[in-house]
Amino acid sequence: MTRVPTGIPGLDEMIEGGFIEDDVILVTGCPGAGKSTFGIQYLYKGAVDYNDPGLYVTLEESPARIMRNMWRHGWDLERLTKEDKIRIIRANPIVYSRYIKESQDNIGTASAEIATIEHLLKEIYRNVKETGAKRLFIDSITSLKISSDPVNVRHVILEFIKNIENMDCTTLITSEISDNCGEFNVEEYLCEGVIRLHMFRVGGNRVRALEILKMRGVKHKESIHPYTITDGGIVVYPSESVIGHENDAMDFTTL
Amino acid sequence: MTRVPTGIPGLDEMIEGGFIEDDVILVTGCPGAGKSTFGIQYLYKGAVDYNDPGLYVTLEESPARIMRNMWRHGWDLERLTKEDKIRIIRANPIVYSRYIKESQDNIGTASAEIATIEHLLKEIYRNVKETGAKRLFIDSITSLKISSDPVNVRHVILEFIKNIENMDCTTLITSEISDNCGEFNVEEYLCEGVIRLHMFRVGGNRVRALEILKMRGVKHKESIHPYTITDGGIVVYPSESVIGHENDAMDFTTL
Amino acid sequence: MTRVPTGIPGLDEMIEGGFIEDDVILVTGCPGAGKSTFGIQYLYKGAVDYNDPGLYVTLEESPARIMRNMWRHGWDLERLTKEDKIRIIRANPIVYSRYIKESQDNIGTASAEIATIEHLLKEIYRNVKETGAKRLFIDSITSLKISSDPVNVRHVILEFIKNIENMDCTTLITSEISDNCGEFNVEEYLCEGVIRLHMFRVGGNRVRALEILKMRGVKHKESIHPYTITDGGIVVYPSESVIGHENDAMDFTTL
Amino acid sequence: MTRVPTGIPGLDEMIEGGFIEDDVILVTGCPGAGKSTFGIQYLYKGAVDYNDPGLYVTLEESPARIMRNMWRHGWDLERLTKEDKIRIIRANPIVYSRYIKESQDNIGTASAEIATIEHLLKEIYRNVKETGAKRLFIDSITSLKISSDPVNVRHVILEFIKNIENMDCTTLITSEISDNCGEFNVEEYLCEGVIRLHMFRVGGNRVRALEILKMRGVKHKESIHPYTITDGGIVVYPSESVIGHENDAMDFTTL
Amino acid sequence: MTRVPTGIPGLDEMIEGGFIEDDVILVTGCPGAGKSTFGIQYLYKGAVDYNDPGLYVTLEESPARIMRNMWRHGWDLERLTKEDKIRIIRANPIVYSRYIKESQDNIGTASAEIATIEHLLKEIYRNVKETGAKRLFIDSITSLKISSDPVNVRHVILEFIKNIENMDCTTLITSEISDNCGEFNVEEYLCEGVIRLHMFRVGGNRVRALEILKMRGVKHKESIHPYTITDGGIVVYPSESVIGHENDAMDFTTL
Amino acid sequence: MTRVPTGIPGLDEMIEGGFIEDDVILVTGCPGAGKSTFGIQYLYKGAVDYNDPGLYVTLEESPARIMRNMWRHGWDLERLTKEDKIRIIRANPIVYSRYIKESQDNIGTASAEIATIEHLLKEIYRNVKETGAKRLFIDSITSLKISSDPVNVRHVILEFIKNIENMDCTTLITSEISDNCGEFNVEEYLCEGVIRLHMFRVGGNRVRALEILKMRGVKHKESIHPYTITDGGIVVYPSESVIGHENDAMDFTTL
Repeated sequence: MTRVPTGIPGLDEMIEGGFIEDDVILVTGCPGAGKSTFGIQYLYKGAVDYNDPGLYVTLEESPARIMRNMWRHGWDLERLTKEDKIRIIRANPIVYSRYIKESQDNIGTASAEIATIEHLLKEIYRNVKETGAKRLFIDSITSLKISSDPVNVRHVILEFIKNIENMDCTTLITSEISDNCGEFNVEEYLCEGVIRLHMFRVGGNRVRALEILKMRGVKHKESIHPYTITDGGIVVYPSESVIGHENDAMDFTTL
Repeated sequence: MTRVPTGIPGLDEMIEGGFIEDDVILVTGCPGAGKSTFGIQYLYKGAVDYNDPGLYVTLEESPARIMRNMWRHGWDLERLTKEDKIRIIRANPIVYSRYIKESQDNIGTASAEIATIEHLLKEIYRNVKETGAKRLFIDSITSLKISSDPVNVRHVILEFIKNIENMDCTTLITSEISDNCGEFNVEEYLCEGVIRLHMFRVGGNRVRALEILKMRGVKHKESIHPYTITDGGIVVYPSESVIGHENDAMDFTTL
Repeated sequence: MTRVPTGIPGLDEMIEGGFIEDDVILVTGCPGAGKSTFGIQYLYKGAVDYNDPGLYVTLEESPARIMRNMWRHGWDLERLTKEDKIRIIRANPIVYSRYIKESQDNIGTASAEIATIEHLLKEIYRNVKETGAKRLFIDSITSLKISSDPVNVRHVILEFIKNIENMDCTTLITSEISDNCGEFNVEEYLCEGVIRLHMFRVGGNRVRALEILKMRGVKHKESIHPYTITDGGIVVYPSESVIGHENDAMDFTTL
Repeated sequence: MTRVPTGIPGLDEMIEGGFIEDDVILVTGCPGAGKSTFGIQYLYKGAVDYNDPGLYVTLEESPARIMRNMWRHGWDLERLTKEDKIRIIRANPIVYSRYIKESQDNIGTASAEIATIEHLLKEIYRNVKETGAKRLFIDSITSLKISSDPVNVRHVILEFIKNIENMDCTTLITSEISDNCGEFNVEEYLCEGVIRLHMFRVGGNRVRALEILKMRGVKHKESIHPYTITDGGIVVYPSESVIGHENDAMDFTTL
Repeated sequence: MTRVPTGIPGLDEMIEGGFIEDDVILVTGCPGAGKSTFGIQYLYKGAVDYNDPGLYVTLEESPARIMRNMWRHGWDLERLTKEDKIRIIRANPIVYSRYIKESQDNIGTASAEIATIEHLLKEIYRNVKETGAKRLFIDSITSLKISSDPVNVRHVILEFIKNIENMDCTTLITSEISDNCGEFNVEEYLCEGVIRLHMFRVGGNRVRALEILKMRGVKHKESIHPYTITDGGIVVYPSESVIGHENDAMDFTTL
Repeated sequence: MTRVPTGIPGLDEMIEGGFIEDDVILVTGCPGAGKSTFGIQYLYKGAVDYNDPGLYVTLEESPARIMRNMWRHGWDLERLTKEDKIRIIRANPIVYSRYIKESQDNIGTASAEIATIEHLLKEIYRNVKETGAKRLFIDSITSLKISSDPVNVRHVILEFIKNIENMDCTTLITSEISDNCGEFNVEEYLCEGVIRLHMFRVGGNRVRALEILKMRGVKHKESIHPYTITDGGIVVYPSESVIGHENDAMDFTTL
């Protein structure tokens, strides 16, 4: 099976060298965990280091702000979008910006007026075909949960994921965690792989840790390992333990 | 009573030699617990070691991906499906893949357009009869909970399980755990047997443990024992304890 | 007041020699606790040791499977049903087995097509009168909770229990526990007696313990005592403590 | 202010000698706490020791069973009802016993066909006037919560309690606790006094403890004290502490 | 800014000398915390010690019972109401006492038939103007939550508080706590100040403690301090700590 | 990227010198945390120290009370509003003050009769343009959650935030925390930055601590640091730890 390098230092060796080609992987975490950075790094390194065209589907953040925020890591997304190595499309289940001015955010992007899941899937498919994207990043699936009926949500998410699986892309999807206490979202059951970005508080400090919750068909690491968000992006430390240097009991409080 | 060997090393000796023939056993666990691997190993070992024809009813995952994922364990499902020793049918309560392309997943399977529980039961029964399946694996029952009214769910699940009981197969069914904190799903009350796949976190490491929650008519082990997912599949260690070699207090955090 | 021996070794001495004649007693517990075994042992020992005719109303399990499962304990229910010392009726609030074949389970039983509580009560009453049953076992009351409105449930369960109280039988009813954390079901308030079957986990082992939550008009034991499910059925140890021989702190985790 | 002795040994000295005349006091607790025994003892001791006529309004239990259950404590309620010193009325928000036989429970009672709160209040008032009852016991208020809308429940309970306050009786009302974890029922806010019957488990033993949660206008004890249900009824030990003779940490698990 | 002395010994020094004139302060606590006593003491001391006319709006308790309950503290509310120094009005969102007799509780009060928030506000305003009340006490705001829709509740409570703010009174409002575990009521966000009356249980004893959760524009104490309900009313001890004389760990269980 | 100094001593050095220009930052906390003070200090210091015009949109508190409450910190908002350096507008989703008198609060403010989100956005945009505001403060977003359907709330909040992002202001928005236990509000996912104001209780004392939950595009501090509300306003101590001078375990109870 072909492997797709993740572009996240330290992660590939936890999963036998990379994602399985054409798999759909979920990245979950609370606000501040770095979910968007994780996915953009996957696209950016894919384009720069492996020459893989990438497609970024943003359901909340504007392309301009995404580009700006990534300057912190020295990633010039604007140049890549101009060269069409990375395309960013903004899909709004609802239509913003009605009152004040026309959106000035559409830099190198196709402005999508997608109202339904079906339209969204067609739009994603069209852009994948146009750009020849090998890497796809969808941020976030939570915006698609347009029904408050949990059973209906299951079917919408199932349909969405199954169609994305057929697009011949290796795909990352982010998902918000609404409750930290042992409850799982339906998408965690439906995706091939789930990566969880934990945030603990140890005393007054934040400790970040990454866990491969599952990765079907892959002999992956089952332990939880620290990661940091550095100037160069996310780095995972697969040979370090969360408990670390000291062996005494620690007060791990869920964030 | 005839016993059906499970194909999971270590498990048979916990339940007097195997499942009771024609029983319906539930396998529960959170994402990453290995529920699908558990059921496929049961079918694969049944076909290879005991010459039992098997039927796999998948409600979420595509047959192609299932076969691919099992390569990790060296199980050649494709060959077995071609010899019709194992048949995989994909039953979709909803219809996927409407927009983009015809599903290329139907390798050696009957493509089912099953919309209701009744249709699904008829389709399962027809395939059981055609293949002479002795082993049946349904993955997962959670997809059948198409009603948000808990009372209605109870009746649908009850009807489904009672009909499956009459199909002359020894059946495994997987079920998602939505909440770890002491709540039980209705199917755990309605099935003859319940096997729970636990995942604890001890420090930064994951500890897997299997528990026979119940097995009617069987004098089964009541203690909880570790299992691992190895290159050769799931292995249970019925003579090892979860607490293990060290006697000091351990920080068992629910995943 | 006449006392009815329970047939559970060790239990009678916890409740002044047995249940009060014509009382309705609830048996609660999670999956695997042994609720059905508890009730069948009550009927079986009643028929064999005290010559009491018994009626078993099953709302979920088929009579054939019940008989099979009890072989583990050496109880020949089939002979007793043929002698009409124990009658098993299967009451289905919904009708199973519609598609595939006629149920082959109706061995020595009256097949009931009971759709409503009222019909169910009439059917139970008719069978009690025909068999002269002194002992009645209903498994389980949870199946009667056909309304998702908690207030409506309260009235249905109240009406059911009050009518059962007037049938001149000493009755056991099982009830599922949906949540372990200090919530009580309405039937626990409405019945004369409540017996709770606990399952704790101590380290990797399961510890079973029985508690008389209440028994109106009876000077019952208020402590919690271990029980086991042996080859000969359930045995309670009223002179043993759950904490047992060791005095050190134990990690009692609710199952 | 006139004080009404409670008839519960040990309780009067916790509340300056008894309830305030014409107050409405709530008694709360889980199944098995002894709420009904508490209220009947209040009526029985009132009739025998203080010559106070009493009225018992039962919304669930039948008068015959109530009388039988109280034999455990040597209380001859049947004689008292014949002398009309205590009257027991059974108010059914729903009508039981429709199918099988006429209720044989109506010994010395007025059989009430009360359908609504308003009818129930009129019936209670009529019986209070006929018997000259000074003590009133209503068991339980939970049966009156006929609406699943919490706001509606608040108004129904408020209306009920305010009318009972105007009946010139000193009244006890029982209430079920649905959740042990710090949530309060609306009736706990609306009544003049609240007595909570706690049940703890210390190791394998049950420890009962009574607490005056509030008693408006009364300088009451604020500590929690053990009580037992003896052959002679409930006894409170206001000079004993729950923690008791041993000073070491105890594992107080809520039942 | 003018300060209004609270009349609660020890409280003024926690909040720079008293409430800010014309502020609306919330007092929250569970049943038995002393919320009503707190507010009546504020009115009573205001009338007796500072000659401030006061208005008491009771939504649940009858004026007669309020007066009676306050005798415990030696407060002669009846005299003060006759002198119109304190006026008590009973506002019933629902109309009580329909069946049995006319309410005899209206001593020195205006009997209000207020059906809506708007009518209630007008009635409060009229009574404030007639009596020249400088202090207003509303007991409790929970009775106004007549909608089960949380968003609707927010608007009703917001409208009520904003109108009360314009009445030129320094106002106390009580609020029930429905859940102790970290959830906040909407009125805690909307009022200028929030005082929380805590009740802990330390071993078998109750420990009361007062906390200024917020007091806008005031440099208030942020620590939590014990209070007691004495014969003379509520007393706060701002220089004592809840943890107190002993430094060892204490088992603080929320009531 | 241009940075906007926050005006909160100690905060700028936690976020590389200030907020990113035109970002929308959320400030969350429970009642009493100081959310309003935080936002007003940001406007006040902006106007006085950096000559930035500011706009304050209050959805609950009246402008007069806001000005009064800020006197505690010596901030003369009235003067600044007269000079139009800070403008305060009161936007009421519902219309207050209907019955009693005309609001006397409209000092230097535009009285808005804004009924919908769309009107509110237009009104904010108009005032931003008129005043040339560079700093915007909206207090609080919780008032905009006018639908009890969580999905609908998501869309309303998303639309609101996306429009505010286009107003060329650096914006603070406050948000109420409804539950402390690990649940996140939708706005915490949708904003560029989230600052959480924690309140712990250590023994009987309150400890305040500030945490940058996220700040997209900024290399921010990830540890949690104490803050106090002093006479001069909020001060953060980025070089002090919450655990502080003592190294022993502390009982950190969430408030």
